[in-house]
Parts: sequence; C-alpha cells; structure tokens
Amino acid sequence: VDGAGKGETVNLLNEWMDPRHIHTHAFDNPSDEERERPPMWRYWRALPPRGRIGIFFGHWYAGPLFDRAFLKVRRAPLTRHIHDIARFEEMLVNEGALMLKFWFHLSKPDQRRRLKVLAADPRTAWRVGEAEHAQYENYARVCKMAGDVMRETSTARAPWMIVEGTDPYYRNLAVGNTVLRALRERLKHRLPATEKERTPPLLPAVDSRDVLATLNLNQTLTRDDYARQREKWQRKLNALSRHPRLKRLAVVAVFEGHDAAGKGSGIRRVTQALDARLYRVVPIAAPTEEERAQPYLWRFWRHLPRHGRVVIFDRSWYGRVLVERVQGLCSEFDWMRAYPEINDFEEQLTASGIVLVKFWLSISKDEQLRRFREREQTSFKRFKITTEDWRNRRKWNDYHRAVCDMVDRTSTPAAPWTLVEANNKYFARIKILRTLCERIEAALEALHRG
Amino acid sequence: VDGAGKGETVNLLNEWMDPRHIHTHAFDNPSDEERERPPMWRYWRALPPRGRIGIFFGHWYAGPLFDRAFLKVRRAPLTRHIHDIARFEEMLVNEGALMLKFWFHLSKPDQRRRLKVLAADPRTAWRVGEAEHAQYENYARVCKMAGDVMRETSTARAPWMIVEGTDPYYRNLAVGNTVLRALRERLKHRLPATEKERTPPLLPAVDSRDVLATLNLNQTLTRDDYARQREKWQRKLNALSRHPRLKRLAVVAVFEGHDAAGKGSGIRRVTQALDARLYRVVPIAAPTEEERAQPYLWRFWRHLPRHGRVVIFDRSWYGRVLVERVQGLCSEFDWMRAYPEINDFEEQLTASGIVLVKFWLSISKDEQLRRFREREQTSFKRFKITTEDWRNRRKWNDYHRAVCDMVDRTSTPAAPWTLVEANNKYFARIKILRTLCERIEAALEALHRG
Repeated sequence: VDGAGKGETVNLLNEWMDPRHIHTHAFDNPSDEERERPPMWRYWRALPPRGRIGIFFGHWYAGPLFDRAFLKVRRAPLTRHIHDIARFEEMLVNEGALMLKFWFHLSKPDQRRRLKVLAADPRTAWRVGEAEHAQYENYARVCKMAGDVMRETSTARAPWMIVEGTDPYYRNLAVGNTVLRALRERLKHRLPATEKERTPPLLPAVDSRDVLATLNLNQTLTRDDYARQREKWQRKLNALSRHPRLKRLAVVAVFEGHDAAGKGSGIRRVTQALDARLYRVVPIAAPTEEERAQPYLWRFWRHLPRHGRVVIFDRSWYGRVLVERVQGLCSEFDWMRAYPEINDFEEQLTASGIVLVKFWLSISKDEQLRRFREREQTSFKRFKITTEDWRNRRKWNDYHRAVCDMVDRTSTPAAPWTLVEANNKYFARIKILRTLCERIEAALEALHRG
Repeated sequence: VDGAGKGETVNLLNEWMDPRHIHTHAFDNPSDEERERPPMWRYWRALPPRGRIGIFFGHWYAGPLFDRAFLKVRRAPLTRHIHDIARFEEMLVNEGALMLKFWFHLSKPDQRRRLKVLAADPRTAWRVGEAEHAQYENYARVCKMAGDVMRETSTARAPWMIVEGTDPYYRNLAVGNTVLRALRERLKHRLPATEKERTPPLLPAVDSRDVLATLNLNQTLTRDDYARQREKWQRKLNALSRHPRLKRLAVVAVFEGHDAAGKGSGIRRVTQALDARLYRVVPIAAPTEEERAQPYLWRFWRHLPRHGRVVIFDRSWYGRVLVERVQGLCSEFDWMRAYPEINDFEEQLTASGIVLVKFWLSISKDEQLRRFREREQTSFKRFKITTEDWRNRRKWNDYHRAVCDMVDRTSTPAAPWTLVEANNKYFARIKILRTLCERIEAALEALHRG
C-alpha cells in the first residue's frame, strides 16, 4: 500500500546491513531495450549473484496487480501471470535463493493520514502523485486483489509476510528481524533440502513410442538437388530476414544433436543466408564464473535478441536434461525440474514475439563412429574430436533415453522440436533451412492477420 | 563509402571463419539506455572478450565523420572526437587487442553505378535510402573528411587499410588476407611488444610538493558539532538527490584511501542520506573471469549509472596506479599508461553529465597502526583486517609516492581529487558530505544557467 513505509524500511535495511552487498532495484517504466524482450527479462538481468542481496521494488507483482485493480486488464491475464510468477519463484528457490516477500499494509484511514503528511511536507510531496491517489481511491479493490494474489503465491518456501505499516518502529523491527532470522537459519543449513529430494521415476511416453527410433535416418538427397534447394531456401530465408514485419519479431534457433551430427555445418548454411549484422551465434560451453553465480537459465536470458535480430544457440539450455543428466553433473531433482522450467522459459519467449525453432540432429551410432574416425584423420578437423566425445558415445543408450524424454516433455505447440534425420548432411541442411523459413513465414503471417 | 561492399565482405568473413567466435555489431540509433551514458558506452559493452573477434559496423568513426561531412557539426568537435578515438584505440591495442581498420572505397562513378544496381534489385533496394543519397551528393566532402580522419588515426599498431571496393574478388581477398596474416603474425609473437617496453622515470611534481605532507591530518570536530553538521549536510544531500534537474545528471563518487582510513563508514554516512532506490555501492575486489577477459576499465564502464542515479565506488580504477603499481601486479608500462587512460575515461564521464567526485582519505601511519590493533581486538571488526593490510602497510612509503603521483596526474578541472584529512572520523565524514553537496549543487547550477 502506498505510504506504508516500504522505502523507509528498505533505506534502513541498507543502513543496518552493508550496502556494498545489497543491490536495490526500483522498476519504473521499462527502457526500450527491456520492452523488446519478454517482460521478465528486466528482472533476470537484475538478479543478484550468489553472495549478494537483491531488494526489488515495484517488482514482478506490482504491474499486473495494479493493472488489474485499476481494471486495465481482465481477470484471466492476471491469473495467468500469477501462475507464471509462482513458477518463477519456485525456480529461484530451487536454485538456492533465499526469498522473502513483504507486503506493507495500512488501513484506509491510516493511508489517508499518511498521504496527507507526505503531501504537506515539501521534502516528500513529490511522492504523492496521481498513481498514489488512484491507489487510495481504489483502496478496497487493491486490498482485495493483493489478498487474492498473496494467497495464491504464498508457499512454504517463499511465503508472504504482511507488515503493519502504521508504526515505523514495529515495521522496521518486524522486517529486520525476519531477514535476520531467515539468514541465520539458511546459514546454519547451508543448502535447501531439495538437493537431497528424491523424484518419482520418469515413465516412458504414454504410448511407449521411441520417438528417435521412428526416424528414417537414411534419407537421401543428391548433390545437384541439394545445390538447387539450398539456393532456393537460402534466398527465401534472406528475404524473410529483411521483411519489414520482422522488426516486430525476433528469431531464436536452437541446435542440439548427437556429437558429430552436423550442428556446426547446419548453422553455417543458415548464417550464409543472413546479413552478419542481424545474427549472433552463441556457442554454449562451460559457464563463466558470473554465470555460475546465477540460476542456470540466466546465461541464456542474457543473450535474448532485440526485435529484428536472430540468435542461434549452438547447444543450449537443454544441456541440463542431456549431458548434465546423463553424466550426473546435476542432481536428479535439478534435471527433473528443468523440464517445466524450460517450458516456462520458452513460453515467455514465444509470448513476447520470439520465433523459437528447435532442432535435434539425429545420426545413427554407426554413422557417428564413421565421422569420429574421419575427423581424427583430417588434420584441420582433429581439434573437433575430444575424449569427451568418446565418453559421451559410451553412454549412447542413456543419451537416447534422455533425448526421448526431452522431446516428449518439451515439445510444446508454440515451441515444437524439429527432429532432423542427419545421416545425409544434404538432407539435414535442407530440412533445417526449410523449417526455419516456414516457421518465420508463419509468424509473419500471424502478425499480419492480427 | 556506401555501396562499396562492406556488408558483403563481412558476411563472407563470417563464412570463412567460424561465426561462433565472431560478434558482429551494427550500430544504428542508440537505445535510451545508451543515450543516458557517455557516447562510447555502447562500444565498451560490445567489446569482444579475449579469444573472440568483434566486427564493428557504423562504429565510433561513422557518427562524427558523417555529422561533419554533412555540416551538422563544426570542425572543432570532430577534431576533439578524433583525438579521443585515437587514444581509445591506443588503449585497446595496449590491452592486447589486435586491431584492423578497413575503409571500403569507390570512385564517384563507381558509387553511382553501384547504388543504381542496388536500387534496381528489389532484394537490395532497401539498402539505398536517404542517407545513401546524401552521402553520394556529398561524395567529395565525405572523401576529403575520411582522408583527413584516416591520416590522423592511422598508427603503426592500428593502421587504416583502404580497400578498393569495385571488384568483389579483389576486395574480399584483400580483407581476408590481411586478417589472416595479422592473426598469424600475432599468434607467432603472442603478446604486443609493449609488455617489455621501458618508460621514462616519473619525475616528482613540478614544484616538488608532497601533496600528502601538506595536509594537517589532525583536524578536530567535537561530537556535538559533528551531529549538528551531519544532520545539516545529510538533509541537504537528500534534497539534492531529489532535485528535478538531477534527472538530467548522474553522480559517481569514488572512495580511495589508506587501509582503515574510514572509507566504509564515510560511504555509509552518504548512503544514509539517500533513497536506496537511487544509489548503488560497487565494492571493487578481484575482477571476475569475464572482467579479466576485457580491458581493465571495462569493469567500471559496466557500472556507470543512468541519469538520476548515484553510483559509489568503494575503491576504483585507481587500483591500477596504487596497489597494482606498488605490489608489482602489472608492468610499469601498464600503470604509466593508466594515468592518461583514466583521465580520458573521466573526461567522458564528466562530458556526458556525470558529476564525478573523488575522495582520498588520508591517515597518518601511527593512526593506521592504532586502528589495525583496535580492529584485531574487536570481534565484529576482526574480519576487516587481513594479512594484505599488513603487507600494504610495510610499503607505506611506496604507497605515499604512488598517491602523490596519482593526485598530481589525475586531478583535472572537471574531476579534481578531494583530499580528506581522516585522523578524525567526524571531520572526515563532514568533509565528504559537504564536498558531495557542493559539487552536485554546482552541477545543478551549471545546468540551470545553460
């Protein structure tokens, strides 16, 4: 509630603790760089790294809550948004964030008194503007909405704390004590219990269909046909990339696949068709130190394109449910929760106008062996083959299972997987180019229709 | 020159090399986040880390060059800008960047022909707009300007290469060959020769004045006077931080000083007066992995505030000419070049409307010893005193010399050092608050006058 002393208490927290370790963020109108990304992008870029405290004002609740209270949006979008927030916060907590949510409350007469006091003092009068008056006029509705939202988003691990704002001594001590006790508690136990949690075993897909086994990997395409079709689709892709309506969209292409399946050469056939000013290829290797200090999706959020741009991920966030799962680099709980987290992430991308195209390049075990050997024998390709490739190959069946689960659980209507039969490189490259064109074209069409 | 094939050649470079290791940046109109920072901020944030190739289009030359050619600005700003660019590039090269600059040229008849061809093809017609026509109309002036600029900014270590753009085969091979040879050459020698360069010895300041020795460190201020003055200046600072004109400025405060001189407590007396939403304290410790892969000033550029905000650096870019110099953590050549580089950096801050206030907190050697001992005896302060502090103390005289050189060489009219006599903490804190207020007030005044 406006005037309930949020600012004063936060200022005091900064005094009581060491402001060098606290990042306080106030969110007003988004900048143009923020407007061209999914709404949560601005919060992701402001997340504190491990070891720091982030204080968020006017955070992810404020916008949707007040929009609804002032009847700017209907009920359904708020419900949807609340759902998204709940899952976002669950992810943060699972990533090890200690999360505390405070609602500063005032009764209606107290709010009136408080706003009057603020308005009367020339040093604080600036704080009482139209928004504050609107909030006061809609006091009952704001409180009702806030109550609903808090009930729906208060969880055992990220509960809401309601703070009576009338008495500043009470308010400050209540918040300060809560922060202190929560920090102490966490420092004693170090990690949230989820690390040790067991998850129910994954069942195979309902129809027990082995999606990779259904592929006919030995598609053929002659060199001449390839040259003709490549010319056609690259020309098409180039035209699409310069389409005026693309300025209101962005494209994210994800390339995953067996080692040596031809991701790199597939990507190059795509970039050949694009102006270098428009695209960026992001190779995903080991995360940097700054990336390791953040939730695992953070390193992908930071590369999201502005409108009109194309970003190609050479490997991606799917590493968590592929290599990290198979090689035991993260806990079962972590990769299990990754499926819904990834779906939430991708839904935000597509909802904000990003055309998301995901390719899985599949080759047979024999074909992989042939290519590994060929690489070892070609001097300028030798650097591409490492002991890691051979290590992954020994777990071929585990990867197979992981890929099936991945496709099963993350192929959504807005972001379906495209499985590419890649034993024949020509066939694979054309399928990639064609799919990309078709998906972009469909998005431009949809934009045109409205 | 427009139409000379820059885009085509860059696309081809992306094809010939591996686009995963290349960041191609096109710079059009700055975003609002960019407009609220110094003009070079957008280039700093796009700098490739070590191990990557950055291709810059419409880079730091294009704006000033064409503005001048089209007579939008007078001669003097261009000259000034050229000077700034030359120093920026020298810094990049000294930081180990391999820098290649290409100018794609066409004769006037060739440019006319080329623009006609582009305009006639529906796939490329979009590339010929008003700007391209304006450039053609002003062909002679553009070429004259470009010639002048290139002469002034072509150095042995970052030379301009002029590429005749008429024949695409020639153009592509010329650029490709240059890149290849430059990369090979660098890989052979690994590091630029500057690492081993000797610099002339630093002379003491002209008047041989030991600026620290002139300070009377034993200023006094009673507790009562302190309480009164603190109230007065904090109130003033708070009012200034909410001044409407501050929305067109930003404040950067730098705190340096002897170990235990009271930087932390001085900073807290400042932040107490500010709304936590407006300021950010940036403690400077060891650089992160991503920061180590960039020029040393990059980690400070990334924290520059938007308009209306305050950033406080607890230690700063002066580490290079203090601890790094004294403890031999960088070469003599590196810390010697840091003085002019820092002056250039700070000049860009102040020119873009940042109020830059730099404090050196000075205590006597005896007072430091007293505080070290006190810290060791107080349980909740013990963490503040480390072996590093004792190590630095053993080099007291070297630090003294380094501080004198620093003040001597980086106290500029726009960004003077404020030396704070800090044996008495009360006195020091008031001087900090008062100086900050006076500097902000003066900037707001200057803005008001015009």
